[in-house]
Amino acid sequence: MESISIIGMVSIITAGVTIAVGSIAPAIGEGKALAQALLAIAQQPDEIPTITRTLFVGLAMVESTAIYCFVVALILIFANPFWNYVIQV
Amino acid sequence: MESISIIGMVSIITAGVTIAVGSIAPAIGEGKALAQALLAIAQQPDEIPTITRTLFVGLAMVESTAIYCFVVALILIFANPFWNYVIQV
Amino acid sequence: MESISIIGMVSIITAGVTIAVGSIAPAIGEGKALAQALLAIAQQPDEIPTITRTLFVGLAMVESTAIYCFVVALILIFANPFWNYVIQV
Amino acid sequence: MESISIIGMVSIITAGVTIAVGSIAPAIGEGKALAQALLAIAQQPDEIPTITRTLFVGLAMVESTAIYCFVVALILIFANPFWNYVIQV
Amino acid sequence: MESISIIGMVSIITAGVTIAVGSIAPAIGEGKALAQALLAIAQQPDEIPTITRTLFVGLAMVESTAIYCFVVALILIFANPFWNYVIQV
Amino acid sequence: MESISIIGMVSIITAGVTIAVGSIAPAIGEGKALAQALLAIAQQPDEIPTITRTLFVGLAMVESTAIYCFVVALILIFANPFWNYVIQV
Amino acid sequence: MESISIIGMVSIITAGVTIAVGSIAPAIGEGKALAQALLAIAQQPDEIPTITRTLFVGLAMVESTAIYCFVVALILIFANPFWNYVIQV
Amino acid sequence: MESISIIGMVSIITAGVTIAVGSIAPAIGEGKALAQALLAIAQQPDEIPTITRTLFVGLAMVESTAIYCFVVALILIFANPFWNYVIQV
Amino acid sequence: MESISIIGMVSIITAGVTIAVGSIAPAIGEGKALAQALLAIAQQPDEIPTITRTLFVGLAMVESTAIYCFVVALILIFANPFWNYVIQV
Amino acid sequence: MESISIIGMVSIITAGVTIAVGSIAPAIGEGKALAQALLAIAQQPDEIPTITRTLFVGLAMVESTAIYCFVVALILIFANPFWNYVIQV
Amino acid sequence: MESISIIGMVSIITAGVTIAVGSIAPAIGEGKALAQALLAIAQQPDEIPTITRTLFVGLAMVESTAIYCFVVALILIFANPFWNYVIQV
Amino acid sequence: MESISIIGMVSIITAGVTIAVGSIAPAIGEGKALAQALLAIAQQPDEIPTITRTLFVGLAMVESTAIYCFVVALILIFANPFWNYVIQV
Amino acid sequence: MESISIIGMVSIITAGVTIAVGSIAPAIGEGKALAQALLAIAQQPDEIPTITRTLFVGLAMVESTAIYCFVVALILIFANPFWNYVIQV
Amino acid sequence: MESISIIGMVSIITAGVTIAVGSIAPAIGEGKALAQALLAIAQQPDEIPTITRTLFVGLAMVESTAIYCFVVALILIFANPFWNYVIQV
Repeated sequence: MESISIIGMVSIITAGVTIAVGSIAPAIGEGKALAQALLAIAQQPDEIPTITRTLFVGLAMVESTAIYCFVVALILIFANPFWNYVIQV
Repeated sequence: MESISIIGMVSIITAGVTIAVGSIAPAIGEGKALAQALLAIAQQPDEIPTITRTLFVGLAMVESTAIYCFVVALILIFANPFWNYVIQV
Repeated sequence: MESISIIGMVSIITAGVTIAVGSIAPAIGEGKALAQALLAIAQQPDEIPTITRTLFVGLAMVESTAIYCFVVALILIFANPFWNYVIQV
Repeated sequence: MESISIIGMVSIITAGVTIAVGSIAPAIGEGKALAQALLAIAQQPDEIPTITRTLFVGLAMVESTAIYCFVVALILIFANPFWNYVIQV
Repeated sequence: MESISIIGMVSIITAGVTIAVGSIAPAIGEGKALAQALLAIAQQPDEIPTITRTLFVGLAMVESTAIYCFVVALILIFANPFWNYVIQV
Repeated sequence: MESISIIGMVSIITAGVTIAVGSIAPAIGEGKALAQALLAIAQQPDEIPTITRTLFVGLAMVESTAIYCFVVALILIFANPFWNYVIQV
Repeated sequence: MESISIIGMVSIITAGVTIAVGSIAPAIGEGKALAQALLAIAQQPDEIPTITRTLFVGLAMVESTAIYCFVVALILIFANPFWNYVIQV
Repeated sequence: MESISIIGMVSIITAGVTIAVGSIAPAIGEGKALAQALLAIAQQPDEIPTITRTLFVGLAMVESTAIYCFVVALILIFANPFWNYVIQV
Repeated sequence: MESISIIGMVSIITAGVTIAVGSIAPAIGEGKALAQALLAIAQQPDEIPTITRTLFVGLAMVESTAIYCFVVALILIFANPFWNYVIQV
Repeated sequence: MESISIIGMVSIITAGVTIAVGSIAPAIGEGKALAQALLAIAQQPDEIPTITRTLFVGLAMVESTAIYCFVVALILIFANPFWNYVIQV
Repeated sequence: MESISIIGMVSIITAGVTIAVGSIAPAIGEGKALAQALLAIAQQPDEIPTITRTLFVGLAMVESTAIYCFVVALILIFANPFWNYVIQV
Repeated sequence: MESISIIGMVSIITAGVTIAVGSIAPAIGEGKALAQALLAIAQQPDEIPTITRTLFVGLAMVESTAIYCFVVALILIFANPFWNYVIQV
Repeated sequence: MESISIIGMVSIITAGVTIAVGSIAPAIGEGKALAQALLAIAQQPDEIPTITRTLFVGLAMVESTAIYCFVVALILIFANPFWNYVIQV
Repeated sequence: MESISIIGMVSIITAGVTIAVGSIAPAIGEGKALAQALLAIAQQPDEIPTITRTLFVGLAMVESTAIYCFVVALILIFANPFWNYVIQV
């Protein structure tokens, strides 16, 4: 196989695998936090503003790890320095 | 194998695997959150509007990781820069 | 192997694996939510309309990840751009 | 191997694997929901009609993911566009 | 290897694997539901007719996924279109 | 390898694997149901006839998935259409 | 490799694997049922005859799946139709 | 490789794997039953004879699956019909 | 394959796998801590400032392991000493 | 590879793997039974002689599966009929 | 492949895998400890200084295992004695 | 590869794997028993001598499975009959 | 491949894998112990000095297994007798 | 590959894997025992000397399995009889 095939092939595979695997844990973690938040609301209705605020700030923090993966996947598809090098050579 | 076969092959595989693997965690996370929401409704009927609102906002956030994967899968099938390059060469 | 064999082979495999793997999590998530809904009905009969409405809206949202996979599987079988390209060449 | 062998081989394997893997999660999810329904009946006999109605609607929804897999498996065996193409060529 | 060997080989393997894997989840799901039914009978003897009726209807629904696999396995052994094609050619 | 070796080899392997894998889940499911039945007897001695009758009907239903596998395994050893074809050719 | 080596090799491997894998689940299921039976005896000493009778009938049913595997393993070692065919040819 | 090497090799491997894998589940099942028996003795000292008798009969039944594997392993080492055939040829 | 292909290929794969695998545990750990924080707020509303402060300091510490992985991934894509060496040679 | 290398190699590997894998379950089962015994002693000090006697008889029974593996491992190292055959030929 | 390719390739892969795998357990362990700390604060507000001090000292100790991995990863990228040797030869 | 390399190679690998795998279960089992012993001491301080004596006798029994593996590993390194044979030939 | 490449390659891989795998269990074990310590402080504030002293001594003991792995990893990178031998030959 | 490369390679790999895998279980077991000890101290402060003494004796016993692995790893690196043999030949 020539270089272009190899670099293209692994870029595609890696981009897909990165976002697929990288979205497993955030979704599970967010689901668990969300489930707990609903339980907390049911137990302590007086603190709903604090709970939902803490929830959404925390979800954003968990979501950040999914976004790291999404960023890397898009870099590999649209701004891949290795691909740019091999198609110029 | 020539380049077209390779790039086409891995694009298909990666698109399918990405959406298949990427839909595992959101579905489980959403199921868990939904189950908890129903329990919260049963425990605290007075807060049903808050619970369902928090639930659907949270589900949308969890769903977002599945959508990242769906986006990457469709890009690989219909807007794949590597495929476009090899069929032009 | 020639291109047609390769592209056809991976399209078949990927279509099957995508829907098979992609249906695991929604079925488990829906089963869990459904089980919890029945428990909620038993605990709080007065809120049956709200519970069942929230349940079916939530199930539809969980089902959506299975549908993403089903869509990708059918695209790979009946509207596959890579297959169309190789059988025209 | 020639194209017919390849396409035939992967069609058979994929059809079997798709329905086999795709029936795992629905069966487990339905079993769990069914188990919970029986518990709910024991706890709240007054709501038996609602519980069983919700149960069977929900089971049908879970069953739908198994049916997606069954549909894809039968398409691969009896209405496979790739097989039709290679045996005509 | 010639086509007959390949098609025969994968038909045998797939038939066995399909029914073997496909019988895992129904057996576990049915066992769980059955276990819960016995518990429900012990807790609420007055509802035995309803419980056993719901149980057997539900078990039949879970069993259906095993039957999908059994059907596909028997099709692959005794009514396999790919095998019929290759032994006629 | 010639066809006879291949078909014979995979028939043996598949027969063994089918019954081995296919007996996992029924045994576990039956064990769980049996364990629960004993607990139910201890809790509600007055319903022993109903409990044991429901238990054995349910066990037979779970056992059926093991029997599907046993049937397929014996078909592959003693009534294998692929083997019959290759030893006649 | 010639046919005799292949058929002999896979017969040995399959026989061992079948009984080894096939004995996992019955042993675990029986252990669980047995453990529960002892607990039931401790809770309800008045029903010891019923409990032990139900226990041993149930254990025999679970044991049957191990015996299916043992039967297949011995058939593969001492009454293997494929082996008989290849040593006669 | 000649036949003797192959048959000898797989006999050794299979014998070891069979007894190794086959001893996993009985040991775990027996450990669980034994643990439960000790708990039952602590809860219901008056029934110690019945508990220990049921325990040892049940352990013997669980042990039987390990003995099936041990028998197959020793047959493969000391009374292997395939080995006897190939060293006579 | 020449050096450039190899180094480029493994850099892409490793970058993706590193961030994908490395984001699993932080997301799960943060989700669990966040869920617990919401429970703590519901139980002890008087200590909300301390809880949220401890939560965010702790989340930052957990996040640090994800950042180690993100740093290594970006180094492998944009500041890779091995790639720089091979494209200069 | 010649026969001596093959037979020696698999004998060594199988001996090690057999005792390594075969010691997993007994150790776990014994640990669980031992842990439960200590709990039973704490709950029912009056029955210490019965508990310890039942414990050690049961541990010996669990240990027997580890000894089966140890016996097979030593047979494969020091009394291996296949090895004796190939070094005499 | 020449030495430079090999050493470069495995250095990249190992560096990424080391930090990726090595960050799994610390993140999970820290998340669990953090979750427990928040629960402890909610239960015992009077001991907040002791709890947070113990928490952060302990987290640092857990973090140390992640840092061992980060150190090894950076050594492999920037101070790799094997790479230095092969590019000098 | 010649015989010496093969026998040496597998001896080293097997020795390491045997003791590594073989030490997993005893350590876990002992840790569980030890944890339970400490709980029993806290619950029943009057029986400390009996508890600790039973604990250490039981731990020795669990430890024995680790020692079987250690013995086999040392035999494979320092008293390996296969190695002695091949270096004499 | 020549010796230097092989020895260098496996040294790098093994060093990374050793510390990566070896840091999993200590981090989890320490996290669990730390979590329990915080709970113990919340339950029994009077024994804080004893608890924290026991905690840190125990953590050091758990940490020791991570340090064994770190020592082996550094030996393999900087004081590897096999590498020293092959670069001198 | 020549003997020196093979023996050196497997010695390095085995040494690393042995200590890495062998340190998993002791660390987890010790963490669990340590966690339980802290709970026991919180429940029964009067028995702290006995608890800590039993704890450290037990930890030493669990640690012994890690030390077996460490010993084997160091033997394989610094006192390897197979390596000594091949570098003398």
